[in-house]
Amino acid sequence: MATALIILGAGMGTRMNSDMPKVLHEIAGAPMLVHAMKSGAALDPERTVVVAGHGSELVEKAAKAYDPDVTVAIQSEQLGTGHAVGQARDALAGFDGDALVLYGDTPFIQPETLAAMTAARLTHDVVVLGFEAADPGRYGRLIIKDDQLDRIVEFKDATDKERAVTLCNSGVISANCATLFDLIDAVGNDNASGEYYLTDIIGIARARGLSATVVRCDETETLGINSRAELSNAEALFQAQARAAAQTDGVTLTAPETVFFAYDTVVGRDTVIEPNVVFGPGVTVESGAMIRAFSHLEGCHVSRDAVVGPYARLRPGAELAEGVKVGNFVEIKNAQVAEGAKVNHLSYIGDASIGASSNIGAGTITCNYDGVFKHKTTIGEDVFIGSNTMLVAPVNVGDAAMTGSGSVVTKDVPPGDLAIARAKQENKAGFAVRLFEKLKARKAKGS
Amino acid sequence: MATALIILGAGMGTRMNSDMPKVLHEIAGAPMLVHAMKSGAALDPERTVVVAGHGSELVEKAAKAYDPDVTVAIQSEQLGTGHAVGQARDALAGFDGDALVLYGDTPFIQPETLAAMTAARLTHDVVVLGFEAADPGRYGRLIIKDDQLDRIVEFKDATDKERAVTLCNSGVISANCATLFDLIDAVGNDNASGEYYLTDIIGIARARGLSATVVRCDETETLGINSRAELSNAEALFQAQARAAAQTDGVTLTAPETVFFAYDTVVGRDTVIEPNVVFGPGVTVESGAMIRAFSHLEGCHVSRDAVVGPYARLRPGAELAEGVKVGNFVEIKNAQVAEGAKVNHLSYIGDASIGASSNIGAGTITCNYDGVFKHKTTIGEDVFIGSNTMLVAPVNVGDAAMTGSGSVVTKDVPPGDLAIARAKQENKAGFAVRLFEKLKARKAKGS
Amino acid sequence: MATALIILGAGMGTRMNSDMPKVLHEIAGAPMLVHAMKSGAALDPERTVVVAGHGSELVEKAAKAYDPDVTVAIQSEQLGTGHAVGQARDALAGFDGDALVLYGDTPFIQPETLAAMTAARLTHDVVVLGFEAADPGRYGRLIIKDDQLDRIVEFKDATDKERAVTLCNSGVISANCATLFDLIDAVGNDNASGEYYLTDIIGIARARGLSATVVRCDETETLGINSRAELSNAEALFQAQARAAAQTDGVTLTAPETVFFAYDTVVGRDTVIEPNVVFGPGVTVESGAMIRAFSHLEGCHVSRDAVVGPYARLRPGAELAEGVKVGNFVEIKNAQVAEGAKVNHLSYIGDASIGASSNIGAGTITCNYDGVFKHKTTIGEDVFIGSNTMLVAPVNVGDAAMTGSGSVVTKDVPPGDLAIARAKQENKAGFAVRLFEKLKARKAKGS
Repeated sequence: MATALIILGAGMGTRMNSDMPKVLHEIAGAPMLVHAMKSGAALDPERTVVVAGHGSELVEKAAKAYDPDVTVAIQSEQLGTGHAVGQARDALAGFDGDALVLYGDTPFIQPETLAAMTAARLTHDVVVLGFEAADPGRYGRLIIKDDQLDRIVEFKDATDKERAVTLCNSGVISANCATLFDLIDAVGNDNASGEYYLTDIIGIARARGLSATVVRCDETETLGINSRAELSNAEALFQAQARAAAQTDGVTLTAPETVFFAYDTVVGRDTVIEPNVVFGPGVTVESGAMIRAFSHLEGCHVSRDAVVGPYARLRPGAELAEGVKVGNFVEIKNAQVAEGAKVNHLSYIGDASIGASSNIGAGTITCNYDGVFKHKTTIGEDVFIGSNTMLVAPVNVGDAAMTGSGSVVTKDVPPGDLAIARAKQENKAGFAVRLFEKLKARKAKGS
Repeated sequence: MATALIILGAGMGTRMNSDMPKVLHEIAGAPMLVHAMKSGAALDPERTVVVAGHGSELVEKAAKAYDPDVTVAIQSEQLGTGHAVGQARDALAGFDGDALVLYGDTPFIQPETLAAMTAARLTHDVVVLGFEAADPGRYGRLIIKDDQLDRIVEFKDATDKERAVTLCNSGVISANCATLFDLIDAVGNDNASGEYYLTDIIGIARARGLSATVVRCDETETLGINSRAELSNAEALFQAQARAAAQTDGVTLTAPETVFFAYDTVVGRDTVIEPNVVFGPGVTVESGAMIRAFSHLEGCHVSRDAVVGPYARLRPGAELAEGVKVGNFVEIKNAQVAEGAKVNHLSYIGDASIGASSNIGAGTITCNYDGVFKHKTTIGEDVFIGSNTMLVAPVNVGDAAMTGSGSVVTKDVPPGDLAIARAKQENKAGFAVRLFEKLKARKAKGS
Repeated sequence: MATALIILGAGMGTRMNSDMPKVLHEIAGAPMLVHAMKSGAALDPERTVVVAGHGSELVEKAAKAYDPDVTVAIQSEQLGTGHAVGQARDALAGFDGDALVLYGDTPFIQPETLAAMTAARLTHDVVVLGFEAADPGRYGRLIIKDDQLDRIVEFKDATDKERAVTLCNSGVISANCATLFDLIDAVGNDNASGEYYLTDIIGIARARGLSATVVRCDETETLGINSRAELSNAEALFQAQARAAAQTDGVTLTAPETVFFAYDTVVGRDTVIEPNVVFGPGVTVESGAMIRAFSHLEGCHVSRDAVVGPYARLRPGAELAEGVKVGNFVEIKNAQVAEGAKVNHLSYIGDASIGASSNIGAGTITCNYDGVFKHKTTIGEDVFIGSNTMLVAPVNVGDAAMTGSGSVVTKDVPPGDLAIARAKQENKAGFAVRLFEKLKARKAKGS
């Protein structure tokens, strides 16, 4: 059965106290909305509609960055969840299949859960995702009658007996798309809030003789986010799961609570991650590598047996081959570093390639920017770059070449050559002593 | 009613195991004593007396750094809290108003709590701050009789019935100043410790027909600190409150538990703070800024839309205007960086000003110190400082000027000019290959 | 009584999901095996035998790194703990004394506990270490009868009554060495696993009329490690204890949960450690020092009143004398820094000595490596090294000398002299403006 996703993301998120649309706040380096889209992506949906309101351009941009084929429907007035789903109608015109309603602020629904909902649709017209709540509080309650989901009762409308029910509504609903919109047409707004509630469709469906059932998931999957405190709690939950998964996969985390993964971080077996390491999006680390303390990685690849840090920053496009060493206070951006090469101290390597077994001295900088354009530095194999060499790109340093420390290299260096650009050292006898005497005398005079 | 604060800070703090006076140990970047002084400052006190003993010169220095008008009274012998309060008598000679006794090791009393005590003084002669203890343990108990605070009973002197009381004594007391000293005169030291207890004044006051009452506060406010473990617990409590408050105010904290605020940190709405950020005292960050991981800020101002870090260190006097970028391994001290300027990598900018839209290349250093004096570097607007430029202060670089990478700039650069100080590159053919062969041969010989 | 240690370390550790032998996974910078060896070392053992299997060469290397006199016995097949102990027989041939069986994956047994076992051996033939388990789960149970340890029952063989026993088996056993091997000879493998269980020796000993007893320890001491999650929990336990001990000893830890100690870290009283500090092995910090945030120390010594960091990296062989300052983005390796010297910013000091009161400018690098050999830099007292000086080792800078910023110093600098190696600055009039116009025009054309 073809599936379409309707992801609601129009809510203001007042309690976030933010100018940014709520669903764009990030967990593990990706907007909540993208987490919801990723959940839904497990169903291989034919269409995806994101319903946006507040800040819809930003929401559209983020949604399309993850999936260019997404359609964004605008809900200009916030008239309730039923109304929000209704805004997807045009975008799904002519679609013949199931619609699944997800929420941009509910990022943790698992693929298996959605698969179970799809399976339940084979036998029921409407499927609702529910959970047994440890503390049901003010959640809507799912009322079961004769083995069918009979209706969803909002807490404030519930009787005492209904409030005693602990099976709660997540809001996630699946039905045939045409059926869903038919049911929504029948939803009214004659209630205290004057809103059209999506939940009302269950009662309507049952009244029409349609069947309805509940698929249950773990309460943590349905975690919704309405404040920054809840956002950071969700982040903590994500991190706890990611850390435990990494440990199970054979990654050593000395202090798991200090390592922050992104939503897509991949780390190989027997890699060691020391305390205080932060992964941004797009990082892959192979097996047997070592990521030392205080390192920060984004959009990069670290191969087997490479050693990174402490205090290394790998930025997007950094590609470290096997056995590479990147040491302290080193930044690597958009650069390929070949097997066994070393950049051990205080360097900036950007828009560059470094050949195998080359050694880059402390304080080396690839001067890649001329104020307007970025240029590339190419360093061959077995090269020895002396400390504090400025490589003014575009520039090439040939295999087995060398640069003298403190040199500004503006022209290519042929293989095997030594490039040197250095003023001759002069020792001015007694000058330091006299200078200090003068300065101290001036200080004594208070000038 | 005019108020005088008497802040007791003479205790040895034996369990701190420290040479430093207990009240000078810090929470959130300020000595505990200063936290207590700040609490009391909410009452706009006419006079403040700190009673110091152990390390009184250091205590005086810290107290006066926060409030130059404070008086420090010396308690040379530690004869109990009543005796300690008595040492403030001379400093308050002629003062006509209320005295409030606070404690230098009790840093969390809230302004509203002290306001409630002031209000209670309108109807009672003596007001004691109490709290309902979850575990009353060995705290002194507040005994209420006929709607009055009748007396304070030390745990060791309490009957079983009195020990069942859960309303405990914080030690904070308010009374008319003259009354307070009168009552203290009547306190004896005929007890097991041979000390003069401030708490005894309640019984004495009641016996004299004065009225006494209790103002209640939350137990966390009265947290006293007697060991380094308690100190770090207090720090953790402060940080938890500061993090939650920041989130409520609309600050995004990816991992709140890794962000450390100072007592006076101010962060604007929609600013994002990544993991592992440390704020020292005196930092203000405007709205919509981004403080990336592993950054350290002290005494600085970060404007709207600025991006700081990762691994940026902003020291006192760093002023970043709107949209400024300060990147990794960059230290900024006593420097104004104007709108849109960038200092992205591995630089030290000290005692400087940088004009709008200027770009400071990697490895740039303002050489501000000649061994005796510090000098200033002035960089204009739209300037392009090439990588690894040494700016030997005092020096000025004019608007739209440029420096060649690797240059040592000792003279002013006029607007629009290019300053360059560079030896010519020479490529010595085959030299690198021959040198390595020689070195390797020497190594093979084991020399 | 002479003691021999038999430390079992042959287990595969399947749940670790690692190619590395389980006992080599580290806690606080030392392999678990070394922690076990350190526990046993408290008994001043005459001989130590480590029984290794999987990865025995690596195990041997690690064991001998800690104690060169250790013997490694190979257990090529994993036939149970009794069989494992049996492999130590040859290594202990002719040894006349007690044997104590420890486990390479049980790193937290305390010296006092082993002393208690030794004492118990005076009155009993076999001594087993047991613990009262909060949740006995599937631990083996210690069955006491007539004031003797009667037998050890594996959980799966235990009756309901035996399962109700909460005194559990740690596996640690002490007996006369010859007796131990005699008993092991009698152990069979007629059980579900087909393994030879060490625990069976108790029943056999009792049947032979030998006496047996239990020494009790805290459950945390017997913590065994079988997965990476358990490993990081053990690390957390170690750190919690180390942090609390440091606080008791008078060290200020602003945020103890962010400070990571190694197994051998020593920190003096009234030293302040800010958040996010990592100690590798071999660090000693004297009293009254300050280790600022984001610092990383390994194999180094920090003297009284020195200030390190933030963002300082001290590597093995860094020796900081009293009052030394090492600032941000500075790496020090194998270097002695004398009293009052300062290396405040962005520097690499390796294989060097720096004299008292010298000031090393920002961006200074000791160019210690020529691609094959490492060389030494010697800097005298009261020296002023200008910013971005390259010190090409081997090189000496005399007392009270100075280097001009941006100089590459290749020859010795006599005392009091100024060494300068610098091209003359040239200001090319209008060149910057013209260059930018050209670049921008090119950009506009899209080239």
